[in-house]
Amino acid sequence: MDEKVALLQDAATRLRINSIKSTNASNSGHPTSCASAAEIMAVLFLDEMRYFPTTPRHPSNDRFVLSKGHAAPILYAAWVEAGLLHESDLLNLRKIESDLEGHPTPRLSFVDVATGSLGQGLSNAVGMAYVGKNIDKASYRVYCLIGDGESAEGSIWEALALASHYQLDNLVAIFDVNRLGQSQPTCLEHDLETYRKRVEAFGWHAIVVNGHDVNALLNAFSEARTVSGKPVALIAKTLKGYDFPGISDKENWHGKPLGSSSAEVLAHLEKKLMSPSTLHKLRPKEPTVDCKETHLIGSTKLPNPPPYKKGDKVATREAYGRALQRLGEANPRVIGLDGDTKNSTFSIYLRDARPQQFIECFIAEQNLVGVAIGCAVRERTVPFVSTFAAFLTRAFDQIRMGAISQTDCNFCGSHAGVSIGEDGPSQMALEDLAMFRAVRGSTVFYPSDAVSCERAVELAANHKGICFIRTGRPATPVIYDENEQFAIGQAKLCKTALPGGEDHVTVVGAGVTLYEAFKAAEKLAKEGINLRIIDPFTIKPLDSTLISKSVAYTQGRVITVEDHAPEGGIGEAVSAALCEAGVSCNLRMLAINEVPRSGKPAELLALYRIDADAIVAEARALCKA
Amino acid sequence: MDEKVALLQDAATRLRINSIKSTNASNSGHPTSCASAAEIMAVLFLDEMRYFPTTPRHPSNDRFVLSKGHAAPILYAAWVEAGLLHESDLLNLRKIESDLEGHPTPRLSFVDVATGSLGQGLSNAVGMAYVGKNIDKASYRVYCLIGDGESAEGSIWEALALASHYQLDNLVAIFDVNRLGQSQPTCLEHDLETYRKRVEAFGWHAIVVNGHDVNALLNAFSEARTVSGKPVALIAKTLKGYDFPGISDKENWHGKPLGSSSAEVLAHLEKKLMSPSTLHKLRPKEPTVDCKETHLIGSTKLPNPPPYKKGDKVATREAYGRALQRLGEANPRVIGLDGDTKNSTFSIYLRDARPQQFIECFIAEQNLVGVAIGCAVRERTVPFVSTFAAFLTRAFDQIRMGAISQTDCNFCGSHAGVSIGEDGPSQMALEDLAMFRAVRGSTVFYPSDAVSCERAVELAANHKGICFIRTGRPATPVIYDENEQFAIGQAKLCKTALPGGEDHVTVVGAGVTLYEAFKAAEKLAKEGINLRIIDPFTIKPLDSTLISKSVAYTQGRVITVEDHAPEGGIGEAVSAALCEAGVSCNLRMLAINEVPRSGKPAELLALYRIDADAIVAEARALCKA
Repeated sequence: MDEKVALLQDAATRLRINSIKSTNASNSGHPTSCASAAEIMAVLFLDEMRYFPTTPRHPSNDRFVLSKGHAAPILYAAWVEAGLLHESDLLNLRKIESDLEGHPTPRLSFVDVATGSLGQGLSNAVGMAYVGKNIDKASYRVYCLIGDGESAEGSIWEALALASHYQLDNLVAIFDVNRLGQSQPTCLEHDLETYRKRVEAFGWHAIVVNGHDVNALLNAFSEARTVSGKPVALIAKTLKGYDFPGISDKENWHGKPLGSSSAEVLAHLEKKLMSPSTLHKLRPKEPTVDCKETHLIGSTKLPNPPPYKKGDKVATREAYGRALQRLGEANPRVIGLDGDTKNSTFSIYLRDARPQQFIECFIAEQNLVGVAIGCAVRERTVPFVSTFAAFLTRAFDQIRMGAISQTDCNFCGSHAGVSIGEDGPSQMALEDLAMFRAVRGSTVFYPSDAVSCERAVELAANHKGICFIRTGRPATPVIYDENEQFAIGQAKLCKTALPGGEDHVTVVGAGVTLYEAFKAAEKLAKEGINLRIIDPFTIKPLDSTLISKSVAYTQGRVITVEDHAPEGGIGEAVSAALCEAGVSCNLRMLAINEVPRSGKPAELLALYRIDADAIVAEARALCKA
Repeated sequence: MDEKVALLQDAATRLRINSIKSTNASNSGHPTSCASAAEIMAVLFLDEMRYFPTTPRHPSNDRFVLSKGHAAPILYAAWVEAGLLHESDLLNLRKIESDLEGHPTPRLSFVDVATGSLGQGLSNAVGMAYVGKNIDKASYRVYCLIGDGESAEGSIWEALALASHYQLDNLVAIFDVNRLGQSQPTCLEHDLETYRKRVEAFGWHAIVVNGHDVNALLNAFSEARTVSGKPVALIAKTLKGYDFPGISDKENWHGKPLGSSSAEVLAHLEKKLMSPSTLHKLRPKEPTVDCKETHLIGSTKLPNPPPYKKGDKVATREAYGRALQRLGEANPRVIGLDGDTKNSTFSIYLRDARPQQFIECFIAEQNLVGVAIGCAVRERTVPFVSTFAAFLTRAFDQIRMGAISQTDCNFCGSHAGVSIGEDGPSQMALEDLAMFRAVRGSTVFYPSDAVSCERAVELAANHKGICFIRTGRPATPVIYDENEQFAIGQAKLCKTALPGGEDHVTVVGAGVTLYEAFKAAEKLAKEGINLRIIDPFTIKPLDSTLISKSVAYTQGRVITVEDHAPEGGIGEAVSAALCEAGVSCNLRMLAINEVPRSGKPAELLALYRIDADAIVAEARALCKA
């Protein structure tokens, strides 16, 4: 056995030892899920990958994604091998004062994307590889370690399909096929041949390998480097808890520290080490430095004001597409991604103007979002994901994980609410505000005209965290001057009788309902009831100050009206703001209270009572009360 | 050509004609997506499937799922062929007074599940086929028509994998490979061989067939009937807009009525008909009647009170598992489904007691939910889906569509919030209340002890619409007597100083935070501040009456405290209720405001200010204000 192999084997053994010790210290965690991947991790971190171990986010480094995030202890142990962490650090696993969390998050310098909800890592890796090959055009490669249990997730297969479609030969996936899930054996157990067939059918070069044979792994990774025009998958046959005597390949050991079984297992493993001093005898290989740092957030600006005049009729979805195109022309690292709806969301404007800044991801929204989050990593690009807002619900888990990943990815959901009309409820987004508002650190834009929509796109591009822009299908008039300024958390008072008259009822609406409020105001003015109409611009953060003041001014009379479910939308956001501010109010919440149906937009607005007539009726009732 | 084939070809032509006419009448819709499936639909509805056309929901009927829901016009036209609808009905397509919506919904008697968000139908079909084979043990077969564009959705591959794992040889999927998506060609275009390889690798018997050749289709369906131990896929090569001269196989015709091109196309098609009077010359075949009607909702009861005593420490997730087991023992059509977390959600209790009432769906939550919705169809079973609540976000689109499907499926999400501790944010559900509340017609239970959790399970089983039960990881004391009665929308006043004393602050908490409120009350009582503590039991519907009265009684002072994001959770539900009731208040909303980290549960409750100390501080501040 040559020395390198022996040292790698020692490293693998040490990875097992450290995985046991750290999970014992935390009294929780997944040591057996680590053990199956020990040789893979040793070979990856000490021979295969090229990176600067003390600058983990160097743009030229190879990328690594631990899709099976519950194997976090072995990732942390690998960074001990690489020289970034100390062995003693590992004993802080899962402690509140440590960033060595139960599953990896980018609080750690060597983690690009949070994992732990399974089956998402490969999508992120595909995004990184796509950017490496097509945008950075750099030599870094991307590696993703996937558990066999999580390969039941459809998102894995979405990612496999897209990676081969785009011929990402800088991407290597390693399937750690250890046969056992959390609660029972996996569907395919050790049927490696079926994994091979599936992965090959999805267009990858597949290599079946003994995942505990260092030599075999070295050869497999060498072979992977020779493959061109295709991504490569190593299908590694492994055992859960491998080399833990009495535990290896046994059920009921998922997510359990070894506890009282540790002494015997550790003695067995320590005896295998050539010597304790083999740590750091192997050093990671340095990368080719051919990729520069980028600083995009805060510097991605539109060259001139939005190209609209007051009164023009433009759907906000179309304004989104135009803004994306203009921003993409101004900055070549602004990219668009869509799921075969680009002619409806209007991201097609960017695709047509700058095809190299557009990634068609086909009808697979989970992967669409995962890829975009991968593209955003290390600030390599400013991605904008678009599809129907209803279909972004398909990727809620990816979006939720994106927040934990500290992503700056932006989302545009079109076809908000019943105002889309005839296509019917499956295409109507009624839950998207609730969904995106509930995401930690998110910003939720709901622009009501083309000018504000264009500014929303620009603001989103330069804002940290997840940004969501809700757009509508119907064309609506431009209401703001091209030079109007917009800021996150700043609402616009669109209509007031002041200073000449008195306002009687505050109305908060957005998108189509804002125009219904304008119509209602005209009718009511004739009866001597004046509406004070607010366009919130961002629903999160909400401009609590302006809204609270307005409601106090209208003696607590307030109507919210939205093309969305009542839960988690504008009405509840306004309610919470008023209750926390202690503003007494009498609120009427107009929203979509049932499963809607197909029909003409105006018919549906009337049927579900979010139209001008409904606002008029509620305003009258409030003024009588 | 024999007469049957000629009549089927006529039917296919008529399906095209009717798809053109109906979409012209509605001036929207997808005639070209219909045209590719015309021969498939004719053969299915007039030769292959066995059903009573005037009793579409007969339990013994074969099932049909149109996964590519945008081809709705051809489904409606097929029911004209079958004899249920009249040709003139079709001209009401997409009108507000008609149930012939843009995409199919169960408002129509012949639709079991709503489709239109792509890639979901096969999961539903798998659920139906599983129930047919294993629970009903009946002869009905299940057919699912899938578009090639939607086959990029990972959920399709999740469903394919599970169907072969359970050897569902009563299931036939037809892939309508018409090459064109909405905005461009699909990833694989007409690469039928790759479809075949993929589907075979996923364990199905695959038959590649010319989808416009009636004879070939008849033979393929015959072959499918001979296959045992495997589901069967027909991979049909078709053209989008087939037989529409000048339109067939052309881009830019997705989702567009033929309009001015219609006359020529209709003339061409009508000329092909043998005679207009071939309608109804073929009649659907009747099924074997070997499946009885079931009436489960409203009659699924626990045999005796919950087996807990006040003061016992039981996690609500464990109480869920026990209740599910007990309900399953009482009713053999109560089933459990889980995604390899059954030993964490405790659905394993049902699996162990009644393995035949449990479906392990592995780590594929979208399919897990879709299968369960399929199982619930025609009231064949009362399904309970469980996994970590965080991972139910993976299936938000399926859940949303479930509401449109009028499903009575029940969901249990465990591991709510930061109180799970060390596993970290990827495993912590903080958005689940927002998600399930935003679903139309949903009921959201948040039981705080084992007794109320058991009653939540029983109430959910008997309640129409989607029910969600949120459970927690830590063991908490039983606070209710075994004979306590619970009702949807009825909160419990858990603590009050009345009649002897006065209450100063209303506190609404649930799960772990309810116990923090109890601790806070003890501390505050010593300072002369009395808390009035409410356990809401259901967050939707919320008991607005009790909460409003309480807050009014405590002079507007109210604290909400929840292990959830502030958006869309208890705090906003309470805010909306108070604002709509016009109750003046001063509310302090305690919730998880940032991405949490790993740590001990008590440490995290303190760090994120949802513990007793935070309640104490806010109550003091409110009483001073």
